[in-house]
Amino acid sequence: MEIITSIQEMQKRIQQLKSDGKTIGFVPTMGFLHEGHLTLVEKAREKADLVVMSIFVNPLQFGPNEDFDRYPRDIERDEKLASEANVDLLFYPTVDEMYKSKHTFKVTVQDKVNILCGSKRPGHFDGVATVLIKLFNIVQPTYAFFGMKDAQQVAIVSSLITEFNFPIELVPVETVREVDGLAKSSRNVYLTESERKEAVAISQSLKLAGRLIQGGEENPLEIQKRMETHIMEHTSAEIDYIEIYSFPDLKTVTSISGLVLIAVAIRFTNVRLIDNMTFDV
Amino acid sequence: MEIITSIQEMQKRIQQLKSDGKTIGFVPTMGFLHEGHLTLVEKAREKADLVVMSIFVNPLQFGPNEDFDRYPRDIERDEKLASEANVDLLFYPTVDEMYKSKHTFKVTVQDKVNILCGSKRPGHFDGVATVLIKLFNIVQPTYAFFGMKDAQQVAIVSSLITEFNFPIELVPVETVREVDGLAKSSRNVYLTESERKEAVAISQSLKLAGRLIQGGEENPLEIQKRMETHIMEHTSAEIDYIEIYSFPDLKTVTSISGLVLIAVAIRFTNVRLIDNMTFDV
Repeated sequence: MEIITSIQEMQKRIQQLKSDGKTIGFVPTMGFLHEGHLTLVEKAREKADLVVMSIFVNPLQFGPNEDFDRYPRDIERDEKLASEANVDLLFYPTVDEMYKSKHTFKVTVQDKVNILCGSKRPGHFDGVATVLIKLFNIVQPTYAFFGMKDAQQVAIVSSLITEFNFPIELVPVETVREVDGLAKSSRNVYLTESERKEAVAISQSLKLAGRLIQGGEENPLEIQKRMETHIMEHTSAEIDYIEIYSFPDLKTVTSISGLVLIAVAIRFTNVRLIDNMTFDV
Repeated sequence: MEIITSIQEMQKRIQQLKSDGKTIGFVPTMGFLHEGHLTLVEKAREKADLVVMSIFVNPLQFGPNEDFDRYPRDIERDEKLASEANVDLLFYPTVDEMYKSKHTFKVTVQDKVNILCGSKRPGHFDGVATVLIKLFNIVQPTYAFFGMKDAQQVAIVSSLITEFNFPIELVPVETVREVDGLAKSSRNVYLTESERKEAVAISQSLKLAGRLIQGGEENPLEIQKRMETHIMEHTSAEIDYIEIYSFPDLKTVTSISGLVLIAVAIRFTNVRLIDNMTFDV
């Protein structure tokens, strides 16, 4: 695995690879790799000639009260995991390398942001959009892989690619789950033993929604209510939100039809868990 | 000359050309071509394997009081001129094709805008930046050619390319001039006969600035004063501005050093003319 830290060197290398006719699969990450990232790499391997991963903790997408400095980093472990997953090229720039020129331009996301987790992180997706425009221009991928665990990010990246005409195919990758259905997350370790057992209720509530939809239920409020009841009856957690939107438009729906996203966030004692599923009606 | 109106078709064609290893020189225009544009094409021909020109009157860069609808258009004449200038590929999309998706993202230029002509056109360069991000992703040029007549635009495009890491080389092209030194402009026809004779004072004042700088003058205020006097003594026009900035940073300079831009705008009875020169000290 080749490791490159300079933007200029990266663009030179990419140009070589593209002039050789290689397709490039891109997996952008903030490092501290887990199974979710490695699944993205696996999908990229299947689809592209070469897999490029970036590791960059992007200060622009952290709010003033979110701790950019304390975000976990372990580049040695990441390098090992990326290499074992057969990543071909690891792009690992410093903050200074990525933001050495001053900010003449500001990118603002004006839609899809004040819902779901985005409503609690003003400016977060502005930072995501900015760094992705940069990374897309540096890596020039044929395909870009994003996990559906963050469905809102997938929806916003989908708009970014369409609206700015990036010649890139977005590949959303399904959430990886534990045997009992709990979405994998590095945060699951913060659950107490009993909470871990209860947490299965999240994915169960989403599957319940799927069954209701299949059974002909068209009222999103009814689905939300049934999911809420299921979670309240089976966990000690507090419900943060249960939201239903069209996907990837992320518009409120009054009746279930087309592709819909159902997303849940709940709070246990020490950890907040999120999960979602999409249903095509 | 091939003419393409669809973004998708354009990207497909560009991909073919790039996989054949061709370099692409890009001349973005709003049409109604004049000699300035054709000089850009000439420079592009010298530098790149293929020349792509776009013709697109971008509504996003017109203010509410600027008449987008009345902007001159003559696609048949433009096609003829582009073809005669050996443009290989003309990209000519409709407004609907370029802006069919809604505006989830807003790009704002936060620096270099409230000076020179930009100070009178709030939002203008936001629209320029947005359409250029799109056009750069559609055409994926190796080189992009912009006329120095609009030096502020060149400075802002330079930042756009650097900050968003577009793998594109910006090629600024010198202003084309009449025999007496007047910068060519489609607006020159609005000058009266006597004004046309007076108008030479604009480029003369810039050359005067050059001589003063060469002679060791370091004070921008002194240079401005001398230019002002020259224009006032030799024309009936009103001076709109005479401004001196570092280039391409467009910062106010207290002493002439490095690369500086000196720009002039004056108003005759029916027309406002602009001109500029850069001097490397």
